[in-house]
Amino acid sequence: MKKLILFLSICVFTTVTFAQNTDSLVIKSLSDNILTYGKAYDNLRYLCKQIGARLSGSPQAQKAVEATARMLREAGADTVYLQPCMVPQWLRGVKEKGRIMLDKNQSFDLHLCALGNSEGTGKKGITAEVVEINNFAQLDRMGEKELKGKIVFYNFPMDPTNIETFRSYGASGGSRTRGAARAAKYGVVAVMVRSLASNPDDFPHTGTTIYNDSFPKIPAFAISTNDADRLSVELTTHETVKAYLMNTSTMLADVPSFNVVGEIRGTEKREEIITVGGHLDSWDLGEGAQDDGAGCVQSIEIIRAIKATGIQPKRTIRAVMFMNEENGGRGGDAYLKAAQQKNEKHLFALESDAGGFTPRGFGFEMKAEQLSKVKEWAPLFYPYGVYNLRAGGGGSDINPLKQIGTALAGLSPDSQRYFDLHHASTDIFEAVSRRELHLGAVNMAALIYLVDKYGL
Amino acid sequence: MKKLILFLSICVFTTVTFAQNTDSLVIKSLSDNILTYGKAYDNLRYLCKQIGARLSGSPQAQKAVEATARMLREAGADTVYLQPCMVPQWLRGVKEKGRIMLDKNQSFDLHLCALGNSEGTGKKGITAEVVEINNFAQLDRMGEKELKGKIVFYNFPMDPTNIETFRSYGASGGSRTRGAARAAKYGVVAVMVRSLASNPDDFPHTGTTIYNDSFPKIPAFAISTNDADRLSVELTTHETVKAYLMNTSTMLADVPSFNVVGEIRGTEKREEIITVGGHLDSWDLGEGAQDDGAGCVQSIEIIRAIKATGIQPKRTIRAVMFMNEENGGRGGDAYLKAAQQKNEKHLFALESDAGGFTPRGFGFEMKAEQLSKVKEWAPLFYPYGVYNLRAGGGGSDINPLKQIGTALAGLSPDSQRYFDLHHASTDIFEAVSRRELHLGAVNMAALIYLVDKYGL
Repeated sequence: MKKLILFLSICVFTTVTFAQNTDSLVIKSLSDNILTYGKAYDNLRYLCKQIGARLSGSPQAQKAVEATARMLREAGADTVYLQPCMVPQWLRGVKEKGRIMLDKNQSFDLHLCALGNSEGTGKKGITAEVVEINNFAQLDRMGEKELKGKIVFYNFPMDPTNIETFRSYGASGGSRTRGAARAAKYGVVAVMVRSLASNPDDFPHTGTTIYNDSFPKIPAFAISTNDADRLSVELTTHETVKAYLMNTSTMLADVPSFNVVGEIRGTEKREEIITVGGHLDSWDLGEGAQDDGAGCVQSIEIIRAIKATGIQPKRTIRAVMFMNEENGGRGGDAYLKAAQQKNEKHLFALESDAGGFTPRGFGFEMKAEQLSKVKEWAPLFYPYGVYNLRAGGGGSDINPLKQIGTALAGLSPDSQRYFDLHHASTDIFEAVSRRELHLGAVNMAALIYLVDKYGL
Repeated sequence: MKKLILFLSICVFTTVTFAQNTDSLVIKSLSDNILTYGKAYDNLRYLCKQIGARLSGSPQAQKAVEATARMLREAGADTVYLQPCMVPQWLRGVKEKGRIMLDKNQSFDLHLCALGNSEGTGKKGITAEVVEINNFAQLDRMGEKELKGKIVFYNFPMDPTNIETFRSYGASGGSRTRGAARAAKYGVVAVMVRSLASNPDDFPHTGTTIYNDSFPKIPAFAISTNDADRLSVELTTHETVKAYLMNTSTMLADVPSFNVVGEIRGTEKREEIITVGGHLDSWDLGEGAQDDGAGCVQSIEIIRAIKATGIQPKRTIRAVMFMNEENGGRGGDAYLKAAQQKNEKHLFALESDAGGFTPRGFGFEMKAEQLSKVKEWAPLFYPYGVYNLRAGGGGSDINPLKQIGTALAGLSPDSQRYFDLHHASTDIFEAVSRRELHLGAVNMAALIYLVDKYGL
């Protein structure tokens, strides 16, 4: 009996070891290929420098649809097609203006921008007294009595002590997403939000604000962290501080747009779909390089690398450039809807939407037994710098697939530099490192390969 | 007996757990302080933007000595002093020129620079036929017969498939450090070295070349990777390719300079010294931001953070700005010599000279039992992104301390971006992330704290 157990143990051990050795060789070939011949960086240069910012509904977004369809064909996808979706068309309008007036002689201009989806002040702008708000409890306490007719300045600094900067973004982000709606309830005429940036700088960081239909849609702005710090100090030393704010932003009717899809057909289980994607739209201030040109070109790179290394996936591998993640999420919704209509079986989806920085881990949203299986693969990732396979992940565009039981994952790159450039004019091609971007694609390709081979 | 063992186990477990909890709290306080109030980034801005490149023996290097002595005082060091050393004074001379001539009508200019410590061609320059060499065996095979009077073009690309870029740097680096000396043996008149850069770009990357006194000191240049790729192609399609190279570089006599030292005196074992350092000199093409202004300001930050959090080290903690790492190593030698003369006891030394990128690990050069002890601390580093505590480390400036038995360590930051800027004009302040730099200091401070508390 003991001998039998020993024999079986050796068999299992040998099989596991053999599989791991084979897998490590395949992953090494993917890595060598991507780090030597990868096209993600060149594709990103095209998206950023030949097209630029890709706000939903803009001509640039449409150009990006055509360009990435071409890139997917060049990468060797068996099928490339466009998946229609209607998207909002928000226009920023003329360059925004903002000024703080301390008294008759003292004033300073603000580094500011309208928040995405914000309504405009009209060309004349708005002038009103400024009140600093540091948390929503304070807002509610002051209420209409103290806030009506005023401009609220939300000063919710990102906590610098969190090592994962997304944690601080989550904690302070309500000021941007819900601040205008919550202040409108009390008769506030406009809001200025401290930019969600990790460091003191002069760049306003935009991003969506979400109105509540029960209250007026008041204009909403982001100001730079340096301006926020200065304004906060001035408010302690001046009895009355006023602001002049002007933007002509407006939301137009929805227009047609597309997700871009490129597939490698599976050999054995063609009906089972594995999705890897990023979002193609971007904010308009920079070039949408890290957010999320990076995720798009990495996803295209998975297709290229699988083809180039001769891997024949059992399942269908689908790279998706989602449209309208930033100010509507319509692409992700359309992708789910199409999956439901066609009764597709979506095994797994991976999104890269945290920048093309050096990869550190993956976050997973899946059943406990699936996560246990994935964690057994961990040693295969160590040589490529990924140590952290943890619960909690996914991405805005793939999250709708939860409704049909799809297991989700998100790439977790190093987050230290992300909020230097997120939604700001600093998110340009030059902020991306070729090797970091490609190393992210290496780890994504490895995960896709393993999920395809072993299932979940 | 069993009960006794159980009791003792509980005691040991409780004590260990308690110590780890205390340690994790102290490390958290260091981290919170550095990430919130850290001065490393501001100090680096001063070094880069107010002083700039700091070549040994230059007026800028002297300014940096004075500036970092001031920064150490401001950080709260109990004692700050300068430690004299003589350094070489190499002058680059006028802007170098280089041109490739394919035939009478075709030519292109090179993006090039003289290698550090190179001799000059004289103002007239040198023109000779170019021979590409891909490895030293090929050089030795061709020998004087085929190489005399020619210009050798060393084309040793960095292997893109190594995840740790320093591995590829090590493998290709001989072309730069020894290429001129080895070619001079065969009557070669000058060498051009493919820049040690990870990616295709237009920047020449300088760095020391080391002559052999038995052979002539022939001029040595670096050319950009794009130029190297083009030249290599041209050499396959043209029978004869000539190059014109001109530089007026020269080595002058040694001049006096200094290491800068700032200390916190220990409370219990003052005579035992723990060193943390970087090198203050830099190459002259950029601003010496990542190499190695980063290591200097991180080391100063350790002093500031220990003082600011009220930690009272048992041992003496010494931050050292080493002079002349780049083209002589005289500062490191002087530091050892002074230690020997004063019969100092150097327990441990940590160097940061791989850039202020996001920290990934530490490499250690110490006895096996010391490394085992250090590895027990690993979980304390995980929350700060450091997973990799491995054998093999140290740094050029602290390596001489091996002679007196000092345990050594080097910070291992993420290496993907380093060879985009190493020794090139791209190594400027803007290439440094504030949070990455400070997070490196957090992990260094944690290691110094643990070594001081527990010894080795």
